[in-house]
Amino acid sequence: MEYRIEKDTMGEIRVPADKLWGAQTQRSRENFRIGWERMPLAAVHAMAVVKKAAARANARLGVLDKTKAEAIESAADEIVAGRWDDQFPLVVWQTGSGTQTNMNVNEVIASRANQLLEEQGKGQSHRIHPNDDVNRSQSSNDTFPAAMHIAAVLEVEKRLLPALKTLQTTLGEKSKAFADIVKIGRTHLQDATPITLGQEISGWEAMLAKSASMIGSSVEAIRELALGGTAVGTGINAHPGFAAAVAEEVTALTGTRFETAPNKFHALTSHDQLVWVHGAVKGLAADLMKIANDVRWLASGPRCGIGELTIPENEPGSSIMPGKVNPTQCEALTMVACQVMGNDAAIGFAASQGNFELNVYKPVIIYNFLQSVVLLADAMLSFNEHCAVGIEPNRETIRRNLEQSLMLVTALNPHIGYENAAKIAKQAHKEGLTLKESAVRSGLLTEAQFDQYVRPEKMTGVIS
Amino acid sequence: MEYRIEKDTMGEIRVPADKLWGAQTQRSRENFRIGWERMPLAAVHAMAVVKKAAARANARLGVLDKTKAEAIESAADEIVAGRWDDQFPLVVWQTGSGTQTNMNVNEVIASRANQLLEEQGKGQSHRIHPNDDVNRSQSSNDTFPAAMHIAAVLEVEKRLLPALKTLQTTLGEKSKAFADIVKIGRTHLQDATPITLGQEISGWEAMLAKSASMIGSSVEAIRELALGGTAVGTGINAHPGFAAAVAEEVTALTGTRFETAPNKFHALTSHDQLVWVHGAVKGLAADLMKIANDVRWLASGPRCGIGELTIPENEPGSSIMPGKVNPTQCEALTMVACQVMGNDAAIGFAASQGNFELNVYKPVIIYNFLQSVVLLADAMLSFNEHCAVGIEPNRETIRRNLEQSLMLVTALNPHIGYENAAKIAKQAHKEGLTLKESAVRSGLLTEAQFDQYVRPEKMTGVIS
Amino acid sequence: MEYRIEKDTMGEIRVPADKLWGAQTQRSRENFRIGWERMPLAAVHAMAVVKKAAARANARLGVLDKTKAEAIESAADEIVAGRWDDQFPLVVWQTGSGTQTNMNVNEVIASRANQLLEEQGKGQSHRIHPNDDVNRSQSSNDTFPAAMHIAAVLEVEKRLLPALKTLQTTLGEKSKAFADIVKIGRTHLQDATPITLGQEISGWEAMLAKSASMIGSSVEAIRELALGGTAVGTGINAHPGFAAAVAEEVTALTGTRFETAPNKFHALTSHDQLVWVHGAVKGLAADLMKIANDVRWLASGPRCGIGELTIPENEPGSSIMPGKVNPTQCEALTMVACQVMGNDAAIGFAASQGNFELNVYKPVIIYNFLQSVVLLADAMLSFNEHCAVGIEPNRETIRRNLEQSLMLVTALNPHIGYENAAKIAKQAHKEGLTLKESAVRSGLLTEAQFDQYVRPEKMTGVIS
Amino acid sequence: MEYRIEKDTMGEIRVPADKLWGAQTQRSRENFRIGWERMPLAAVHAMAVVKKAAARANARLGVLDKTKAEAIESAADEIVAGRWDDQFPLVVWQTGSGTQTNMNVNEVIASRANQLLEEQGKGQSHRIHPNDDVNRSQSSNDTFPAAMHIAAVLEVEKRLLPALKTLQTTLGEKSKAFADIVKIGRTHLQDATPITLGQEISGWEAMLAKSASMIGSSVEAIRELALGGTAVGTGINAHPGFAAAVAEEVTALTGTRFETAPNKFHALTSHDQLVWVHGAVKGLAADLMKIANDVRWLASGPRCGIGELTIPENEPGSSIMPGKVNPTQCEALTMVACQVMGNDAAIGFAASQGNFELNVYKPVIIYNFLQSVVLLADAMLSFNEHCAVGIEPNRETIRRNLEQSLMLVTALNPHIGYENAAKIAKQAHKEGLTLKESAVRSGLLTEAQFDQYVRPEKMTGVIS
Repeated sequence: MEYRIEKDTMGEIRVPADKLWGAQTQRSRENFRIGWERMPLAAVHAMAVVKKAAARANARLGVLDKTKAEAIESAADEIVAGRWDDQFPLVVWQTGSGTQTNMNVNEVIASRANQLLEEQGKGQSHRIHPNDDVNRSQSSNDTFPAAMHIAAVLEVEKRLLPALKTLQTTLGEKSKAFADIVKIGRTHLQDATPITLGQEISGWEAMLAKSASMIGSSVEAIRELALGGTAVGTGINAHPGFAAAVAEEVTALTGTRFETAPNKFHALTSHDQLVWVHGAVKGLAADLMKIANDVRWLASGPRCGIGELTIPENEPGSSIMPGKVNPTQCEALTMVACQVMGNDAAIGFAASQGNFELNVYKPVIIYNFLQSVVLLADAMLSFNEHCAVGIEPNRETIRRNLEQSLMLVTALNPHIGYENAAKIAKQAHKEGLTLKESAVRSGLLTEAQFDQYVRPEKMTGVIS
Repeated sequence: MEYRIEKDTMGEIRVPADKLWGAQTQRSRENFRIGWERMPLAAVHAMAVVKKAAARANARLGVLDKTKAEAIESAADEIVAGRWDDQFPLVVWQTGSGTQTNMNVNEVIASRANQLLEEQGKGQSHRIHPNDDVNRSQSSNDTFPAAMHIAAVLEVEKRLLPALKTLQTTLGEKSKAFADIVKIGRTHLQDATPITLGQEISGWEAMLAKSASMIGSSVEAIRELALGGTAVGTGINAHPGFAAAVAEEVTALTGTRFETAPNKFHALTSHDQLVWVHGAVKGLAADLMKIANDVRWLASGPRCGIGELTIPENEPGSSIMPGKVNPTQCEALTMVACQVMGNDAAIGFAASQGNFELNVYKPVIIYNFLQSVVLLADAMLSFNEHCAVGIEPNRETIRRNLEQSLMLVTALNPHIGYENAAKIAKQAHKEGLTLKESAVRSGLLTEAQFDQYVRPEKMTGVIS
Repeated sequence: MEYRIEKDTMGEIRVPADKLWGAQTQRSRENFRIGWERMPLAAVHAMAVVKKAAARANARLGVLDKTKAEAIESAADEIVAGRWDDQFPLVVWQTGSGTQTNMNVNEVIASRANQLLEEQGKGQSHRIHPNDDVNRSQSSNDTFPAAMHIAAVLEVEKRLLPALKTLQTTLGEKSKAFADIVKIGRTHLQDATPITLGQEISGWEAMLAKSASMIGSSVEAIRELALGGTAVGTGINAHPGFAAAVAEEVTALTGTRFETAPNKFHALTSHDQLVWVHGAVKGLAADLMKIANDVRWLASGPRCGIGELTIPENEPGSSIMPGKVNPTQCEALTMVACQVMGNDAAIGFAASQGNFELNVYKPVIIYNFLQSVVLLADAMLSFNEHCAVGIEPNRETIRRNLEQSLMLVTALNPHIGYENAAKIAKQAHKEGLTLKESAVRSGLLTEAQFDQYVRPEKMTGVIS
Repeated sequence: MEYRIEKDTMGEIRVPADKLWGAQTQRSRENFRIGWERMPLAAVHAMAVVKKAAARANARLGVLDKTKAEAIESAADEIVAGRWDDQFPLVVWQTGSGTQTNMNVNEVIASRANQLLEEQGKGQSHRIHPNDDVNRSQSSNDTFPAAMHIAAVLEVEKRLLPALKTLQTTLGEKSKAFADIVKIGRTHLQDATPITLGQEISGWEAMLAKSASMIGSSVEAIRELALGGTAVGTGINAHPGFAAAVAEEVTALTGTRFETAPNKFHALTSHDQLVWVHGAVKGLAADLMKIANDVRWLASGPRCGIGELTIPENEPGSSIMPGKVNPTQCEALTMVACQVMGNDAAIGFAASQGNFELNVYKPVIIYNFLQSVVLLADAMLSFNEHCAVGIEPNRETIRRNLEQSLMLVTALNPHIGYENAAKIAKQAHKEGLTLKESAVRSGLLTEAQFDQYVRPEKMTGVIS
């Protein structure tokens, strides 16, 4: 491989000749050979947004030459567009402030911007420095948390919530389609009073709606940007107008609202807001775990389970049992939910470990946060397409289960009281009678009364 | 001990003669001898609120006799007032729907209401039944989650947020009082650019303010009550007007807004909302961990640590080292934060385990939730009273640290560039020079320029 | 209330006249009004064992007067016997070294020992001091971690493992009793190849056996005692022979082996060993979750679930649905498992937070550890008595499920290949045929061959 | 792209022509577009070991043609050697039994083995089928957990423990090298009695030694292989001798001991053993968190922190503060520790979710387990090379801190009692005296006595 010599304040270092990055990126590559988890590209792209917004704000405030600013903006645009994704090789397990990723972006932008200036014949007169120009008015300590918030907001808005909405829509349609199917309800895994399949699925739909609302509410808290705080929150070396200006630019560039954090000391050293948003994300994971479990239990069988639903058969389920089909989409989704639970523990822990003016667990926080968001989004879409849209009721099984349930007895409470009703149900259970047989045998009510009182469809409250 | 014979649908059972509870409470006591954690009284009292509100709603809707309703209300009032706390002996580790605690409250209210009716000479004509009367229009499956939400809202509003506010106020006062003390900032535990002590503490204050805001926002989600859903969410055996009416009554009784849950199937089987609120609570725990750590590190010493703050000496710190004083309030607070992290894991897990129409991990969820809230509230008050109010700066140490810091060099970036500034700092570090000595020696600027550019108080951005 | 004046190095303080504790206990009560979780008595009793062992070792080594030593031992004996449980009012949320509980025990022993000496007429000549005598050769920093290990070992050995063994025995008996019942196996909740009920339950039994083995192995790691390390691990103010001597005494007093920790610096500041033991405890919790889930799913119904098992009916299950019986013991057990998961997170977090010569999260670690152990022990006993012993097969349902299963087709793989077998199963599923009908219709084998190859009982490998 | 048509029991599907995988792998790629986490290659290679071992065992038992067996073995060898790593594109988030990865390996081996047979001119006579031949005597349900155990054992033995040992050796050397440096000890972050730097570091070394021992002990539990259990644990379609034979083959192939699991029902449905091993791994993470924290706190400064150690300067620390150097290796290591805590939560949760004969959270368990092991191994090596080996004492600072400490007073306890000693320390603190000045002023001992009693080096117990 060919190398060129780069230089930073530690001295010289060899960098692969064909790479845009510089000395500090190279040092990080060599000093942190840990794992295979690269800094998520969503965070890198968000950092490029920060750099572009900063260049614009700096130019606007007169602290950065316009030609330089434009070159920086162009280079940042290319990064956001994904053109240089292979120029960001650093792993998550680097310095806890994300300084090395900040410098990676600074260096790539400086190199690329200098290339562009060369092409324009301005290379001589305008030499861009990664720290003095690209990082102007900034510190890793404010750019990295800003990039975390930007990446988190965008991934939630562009990936997570749309995927959630897709699945919610499917469930809403299923709920309507099955509104007239009366089935047995189940509590404690035991037969309970009737419910429609539409109602049951409406509960799932409501979980998604509620999660969307909770995630949406908490996302408001991470629209605050640390930018303008620089090294320790005081804003040293930044123009007094920079904080507000750069937040405006980020808003304009992303098309979604951001604002400057009211207290920059908080913004550098606390990640309470990401903990909170991820708490809402964990709520979604808990709901998805429950929905996926319900689906696979209701579809269990085909002959020795509950079998009230059928779901699509997507692939052979077993390497040994021929013809077996498994609820694999449910399994992928519940494994993802499980991962989100673990990620939540890591995020909360990391967020608690700040010291003084900085929390240095930023990369592990944003890595886990984005993994949760991406996995949930993808898993919901996969579950939707390969399972939810194909859910169908097994009407015959549903009907048989409903008919034989003893908990229809609940409808008798207002007429004969809880204790008498209990006697009827217990006798039926013990002697293998139908509920009606047991009721009539009890002498507490006639067959006609039983037929009048015990009407499963009426017990659902929605079918008259 | 004297016993009386009680009876339920399982048959007869002996109950201590002096107790108000009945057969089902007794069975639970005997069947669940697990641990020492009793169902939190906050949850029991909230259940009594539910019972009173239900009696009023039932009477209003004409489905419960007014005399009975009034007796139930009086008995419930006595429970809420704490008169019968010893009548709720059940542990957390019971049925997962909280049915046994629901029945415990039903039974105690029925017994006590019957006593009151006897006293009024109405005992013959009006016999109150725990299921048919006290539990009318209800199921454990909707009363218990409703009681969870009521208890959670009240404990957050009446304990947690006021305690948080108390500490926040103290920190706000300290921030103002120390606004003019310029000190060294620290990032990565390494000396950084200056900051005022007031600014540093404003970051802590902002954490509490932000947490209060996040907790406050998320509490809105748990104002929804499952009441009216009864057994499976369909509202079987409840009057159609009951759900709305009982939410109004709960609002009136508690003085804080509650409303009926828009989807009762969700309300019985998902606890995503409590997960979310506890996510905000975990954010607070993370912040408190960080604040307590900062305080004890800044107060570390007295002679071999950072020593920039002094904190109150409350008790001997060591059984072997005479005269030792330790930051014990910080320690209690950080242990509580640690517990909250564990509780959050338990809550998220439990919330994911619902099946069909019911989540049967309700007691473990509310136990952990309330423990977090109570511990954080108490620990913040304790920390406030015995530590935060007594925080004082050690001005001499602060001044000495500031003067010798090398990171004041950052102020030179705009004048001589990052790389030259780095050379000056590195030379000073290597040769044990002051920054000014190193700067002048570098030939890059004069002593007069150095004095003009490097003014720690100006680097804080707030002191001119 | 009457008070007396007590004194420590901070000055005077009023203590309730009827209490044995002294000034430092009283200060802790007043300074730490946090929550309701008292330091577990198991830890207090273990600390009394430490004090007795230390007195014996000190006397043996000639550094403590024999009369004093005997008085201390007698007082410690009374504490271990439970006589003074109400003298230990301190909460978990105190100083992170447990110093206040150490001093609470020192103070109560000193007071009580002085009473005993008074009774013997030796009060004048032998005045016992909580620090100089009871705490001699010790520091909180070594006594508290020693007490943690002692309490943990004893609770595991005397509570957890016997309870586990009880349940394991029951499951072993059930496994044998049901060895001949062939039933359908289930993987992915879908019908799979046959298994005997005895085999299925043997898996549960093996989980308990394996957990017992893992817990037992890891308990070996916490037989190490920090005693002898005193304040920072160097053993200052302790006789060089103290560490070994006191470990011998603890062994003699408890009847189970303890030894002195080979590196005292580790012993004071790391709790990796308790993390490990609790990892085994978490493994048990995971297994119990799975067992309890299997039991309640197999017993689900009674008419609309899987219904292959019946379990005891212990109490009415519903406040609204008459005659409903729920798997409440399973629910209590799974909630406990959930709690143990949360406790594990708290313990791991706390164990990671040591600084320099001490980890100051000791109380929260031992609180969570002991809660897990006690809850699991109690819950296993409760589950055993009220559920496991009463598990019975529902032979009719088991037989019906087995007969209609399609996965018996797996037995045809060696004869006709996986792909042909899959065709037979799929056709049967699609057209509602029995497997035999489908097989014969496929032309791949005769009815006689089918009957020869497909024999469910042979597919279990144990029944010929 | 060119495609070929492949076929499985679901029908036909297009597969990229240049790939070795078959229909089921392709279906999984299309049905599970979730996240970017591929099934770890360590698990894939372990599965290839399983396949080779199975082929050998099958051939030995006479149930697989020797020519076929040899071709399978050759193909498996190539996979283990890493030649076909790009043929395993499946993600973690697939079916929870790992069936798709099992089939991916079956398909790639079948394709490759058929190529080899073609080359040998045996393609016509010996056509290898992924299910009937490569998967013979196996099911995903026993191969995948076996591969999990094999991968876990190998990664622990070949990566984790050697890396741990490397760091332990460095710490051992440092401990010896600094054996004579007496410094202040610190508990509760407060000055305590003296300790040598060698002793302090010996505590870190002991943590690693202890963790190695705990991890080593628990690894014994995962030497058990599920192989031979096939679909549900009964061993259907496997030769009775297969289980033992295949375990022998795996032992021979890996060079480390494996054995057949005594209860196959446990082996398929419980992952308690991996929970336990990861509990030991979490203990290591907690220790590393503590060690890294100690290092960075002791190296804090350079001028305003504790500054008793210096660590290597590896890269510029700040994008804004020139000359700043940060403890970045500590930061990477503590972030890794944090991740391991999260992974532990995910693993425990997943392990608890088995149902009936199978736990279908296998991929998420092994993904988290292997991530922990790899990250810890890499991070320990990185920390060792770039930090630990370069740790040096700052003798001047250490001496100054030691001299001014007040806790040397502890040495006076045996001479003047705890309370008098406390008075001396408190007076010194209050009036800014040296300890000796305060002692002499107290009149309790002479200057000569003080010099005789208070000798810091003697207080460490190792230096006389």
